[in-house]
Amino acid sequence: MASESRTRRRGALLLAGTAACLGLAAFRAAGTDARPASPIYGVTVPEGYRDWRLIAPALEDAPLNEVRAVLGNDLAVKAYRDGALPFPDGAILVKLAWTQMRSSEFETATVPGPATTVQVMVKDAKRYPATGGWGFGRFIDGKPVDEAQHQTCFACHEARVKERDFVFTRYAR
Amino acid sequence: MASESRTRRRGALLLAGTAACLGLAAFRAAGTDARPASPIYGVTVPEGYRDWRLIAPALEDAPLNEVRAVLGNDLAVKAYRDGALPFPDGAILVKLAWTQMRSSEFETATVPGPATTVQVMVKDAKRYPATGGWGFGRFIDGKPVDEAQHQTCFACHEARVKERDFVFTRYAR
Repeated sequence: MASESRTRRRGALLLAGTAACLGLAAFRAAGTDARPASPIYGVTVPEGYRDWRLIAPALEDAPLNEVRAVLGNDLAVKAYRDGALPFPDGAILVKLAWTQMRSSEFETATVPGPATTVQVMVKDAKRYPATGGWGFGRFIDGKPVDEAQHQTCFACHEARVKERDFVFTRYAR
Repeated sequence: MASESRTRRRGALLLAGTAACLGLAAFRAAGTDARPASPIYGVTVPEGYRDWRLIAPALEDAPLNEVRAVLGNDLAVKAYRDGALPFPDGAILVKLAWTQMRSSEFETATVPGPATTVQVMVKDAKRYPATGGWGFGRFIDGKPVDEAQHQTCFACHEARVKERDFVFTRYAR
């Protein structure tokens, strides 16, 4: 019985492994990604971004009333530290935002409440030549917001921080 | 010549290695650290903390008017994610604080101005039995503030967040 059960278990594992392998092949063949991508840019929320290093925290006034943190991948952090603009291809910035919530334990402190948006900027000069080399994605609960909202990203970055490679956030030292 | 040069290089490396080793021994024997330590607790600003992962951003009202970010080492991040209290020995939290500065590029945004303090909590249950297992350090420009200020740390943490292992900051998801 024990041996039969082991054999069945091995068979099941083999089947599962094969299925996973085929799944991966399909994924690769399609060149797509299961994660939802932003309109216009096709930007996705990068995997593991929550473990990336801090560029800087920030606040946003009403009506959003958010507390935020911008994290960057290794390429982005290196560019910031080197003071090297423009950012290299592959640099990614992710802005996490939460509603401001008064701390219940410390009267003068405001802390993150529920998450609101995750916003992503991906540098790829060849892929995004019309928008300063940046692709944009704005996500709520992991899903991209509509195309109209994505049409506003670059215009604002271009109008205000073109000379800093279209990036608002500075590295907080 | 090439071989002679290699031999010399090897000799130099050996000497350098030995010197480094002796230096390390002296460092260990003295049980000290070149970095200035906090009064009462002997806590230092941990090396490389700026690369640690984000626990959460926060704000502090007047009179401090700060924007802050708490970073944690691997042990601290793991404990947060596992929801496991108390924090294990070796867990370290670092709170970075900056004065709030209105963004010059985006009217409704507030960003980090000059750095104010770096505050450190180190978990070591054996070393700090009288203060919930935590050692505290508060630093301005890398130098610890005075003993009187350090005497206030634990009383406040104990009065307000004893049931969360004396830690205010929650992990921002």
